[in-house]
Amino acid sequence: ASPSESIRATLFPGDGIGPEIAESVKQVFNAAQIPIEWEEHFVGDKVDPRTESFLTWESLESVRRNRVGLKGPMATPIGKGHRSLNLTLRKELGLYANVRPCYSLPGYKTRYDGVNLVTIRENTEGEYSGLEHQVVRGVVESLKIITRQASLRVAEYAFHYAKVNGRQRVSAIHKANIMRKTDGLFLKCCREVAEKYPEITYEEVIIDNCCMMLVKNPSLFDVLVMPNLYGDIISDLCAGLIGGLGLTPSCNIGEGGIALAEAVHGSAPDIAGKNLANPTALLLSSVMMLRHLNLNDKADQIHNAILSTIAEGKYRTVDLGGSSSTTDFTKAVCDHL
Amino acid sequence: ASPSESIRATLFPGDGIGPEIAESVKQVFNAAQIPIEWEEHFVGDKVDPRTESFLTWESLESVRRNRVGLKGPMATPIGKGHRSLNLTLRKELGLYANVRPCYSLPGYKTRYDGVNLVTIRENTEGEYSGLEHQVVRGVVESLKIITRQASLRVAEYAFHYAKVNGRQRVSAIHKANIMRKTDGLFLKCCREVAEKYPEITYEEVIIDNCCMMLVKNPSLFDVLVMPNLYGDIISDLCAGLIGGLGLTPSCNIGEGGIALAEAVHGSAPDIAGKNLANPTALLLSSVMMLRHLNLNDKADQIHNAILSTIAEGKYRTVDLGGSSSTTDFTKAVCDHL
Ligand SMILES: CC(C)[C@H](C(=O)O)[C@@H](O)C(=O)O
Ligand SMILES: CC(C)[C@H](C(=O)O)[C@@H](O)C(=O)O
Repeated sequence: ASPSESIRATLFPGDGIGPEIAESVKQVFNAAQIPIEWEEHFVGDKVDPRTESFLTWESLESVRRNRVGLKGPMATPIGKGHRSLNLTLRKELGLYANVRPCYSLPGYKTRYDGVNLVTIRENTEGEYSGLEHQVVRGVVESLKIITRQASLRVAEYAFHYAKVNGRQRVSAIHKANIMRKTDGLFLKCCREVAEKYPEITYEEVIIDNCCMMLVKNPSLFDVLVMPNLYGDIISDLCAGLIGGLGLTPSCNIGEGGIALAEAVHGSAPDIAGKNLANPTALLLSSVMMLRHLNLNDKADQIHNAILSTIAEGKYRTVDLGGSSSTTDFTKAVCDHL
Repeated sequence: ASPSESIRATLFPGDGIGPEIAESVKQVFNAAQIPIEWEEHFVGDKVDPRTESFLTWESLESVRRNRVGLKGPMATPIGKGHRSLNLTLRKELGLYANVRPCYSLPGYKTRYDGVNLVTIRENTEGEYSGLEHQVVRGVVESLKIITRQASLRVAEYAFHYAKVNGRQRVSAIHKANIMRKTDGLFLKCCREVAEKYPEITYEEVIIDNCCMMLVKNPSLFDVLVMPNLYGDIISDLCAGLIGGLGLTPSCNIGEGGIALAEAVHGSAPDIAGKNLANPTALLLSSVMMLRHLNLNDKADQIHNAILSTIAEGKYRTVDLGGSSSTTDFTKAVCDHL
């Protein structure tokens, strides 16, 4: 494909193992002849006053322009006077929903079989407001903010997602028996949206009970939608059911149709540069990006190649108990295409 | 034992299946010749203005006087103008720590083997402040309150518990990377207390990561201490690992040395009065109460009888896949004494 026919997408390789797993995606995309031209952006080495973080203004502009991107792990440098990289991205790009499909990978055994659910997390408010202060010495408070606008938006997204993906049920996760007003508003919004989707079963599950049910029988759930912190907790719990963050893709949906796919695991500085990292989460995230672009055949092709490689079990990275390098695993995926 | 030698304890049988499982405890205590005289109190049928709830003032006075009690499930009646029964008990009795040992029951198979951890939950503040309001239409906020006093108190309890129970490690669970001030203060207090217990390993684990690790490998944990909502979530998650709330004991520690042991499962109105309820959680909770009273031999005896009955597998209630009645199971426990 000539550059004029190709789709431009922003790539944040990120820190630590980020560049290695991003390289893996580039190779698989080349092998699959995906018509994507990457605009690569790295985290800067000083605070950009326009973003108040180490993210460059240009990198955010790139996502806004391309409306689609892929992101590796970013470790926020320690120190004052700047914002967290991940939170800055969410805020500046209005990434209002974090979507994480979570399914058992055939051939990779955990305690759970046949997990197949999707968590959809409100990504901009709730306990992440950043509003905190000391009331008097020894007494501090944090504000959890829930708005009708953000709750409706993520609920709409969840039901729409369920519908187009042929899913049957949406569970709203909450603690409205305690936080009657905030979580109560969240539920009210979910109920309003649920009425527009009579074909989808809607239920409400209290978060503590939800976690107990998830570890006892995850197949009770299909699509889960929830406020920010509950989403943070439950999406990681679900990742644990199928093997961890190294295997779970995610995609952030933003204002104006932006989609920023993202590997949510850490930057693993201890193994960075050693050709040991598992690129699966970033590869599966890139598949979500392709689906967002409606390149479904290419998405299926890559998805199947990743799953076959893992199922075959011959090439597995160290985190999965194997001894393959990042490049060996990547080559195996390419070979399966 | 004549009444004058016996220990008085308050008993709240509670609602639904409560009276049946409370009866089970009374029978096992009789069979084991425990020198306890129960002061039985039921939830009232109208709001007591002195407690602002359906709990009677007399029942709270009974716990304050006896300093020890056992509580079955209580369903808060729906409606306005009164407080939740559980929250009223916590508040009025200053029940600052909820302690839940969580261990695999030999012979009762789940996906997890050899789980053996204890969650210690701050029980009075945090997200349970009840302080919420609408800022403008469509924008609501809840206040999470963390105080130095309550954090130190629960941290002290956790380290003390670890020490006297021969446990090696205390993990403080938090989200201080986001809630820097509130969870930050909680961690600061835990660190202060940790310094006084050099023999106990102290670590800090972010809640999302904690939940992932718990489902992947619960034996990474020993004693976990955390703010109210995280405790609510994680204690139920842990219960799920070993089979559910029907099998997990709990005890609330209050001001002035009060201990109120409690079955934390629901009142199961659908099976109430049918002699089908599983009394295990309340029985194991009563064992925690006996330990609090330093009646350790009796506690061991009953504990072993419950575990043997479950391990034997001959008498199991319906929730565990068996067909025994509450009374059959209870009799089996008594026979094992
Ligand atoms: C790194 C942290 C701020 C972040 C969060 O809490 O959202 C992470 O846990 C995630 O889920 O992306
Ligand atoms: C019933 C509810 C208010 C309570 C809580 O959230 O504390 C329950 O989940 C518990 O853990 O005791």
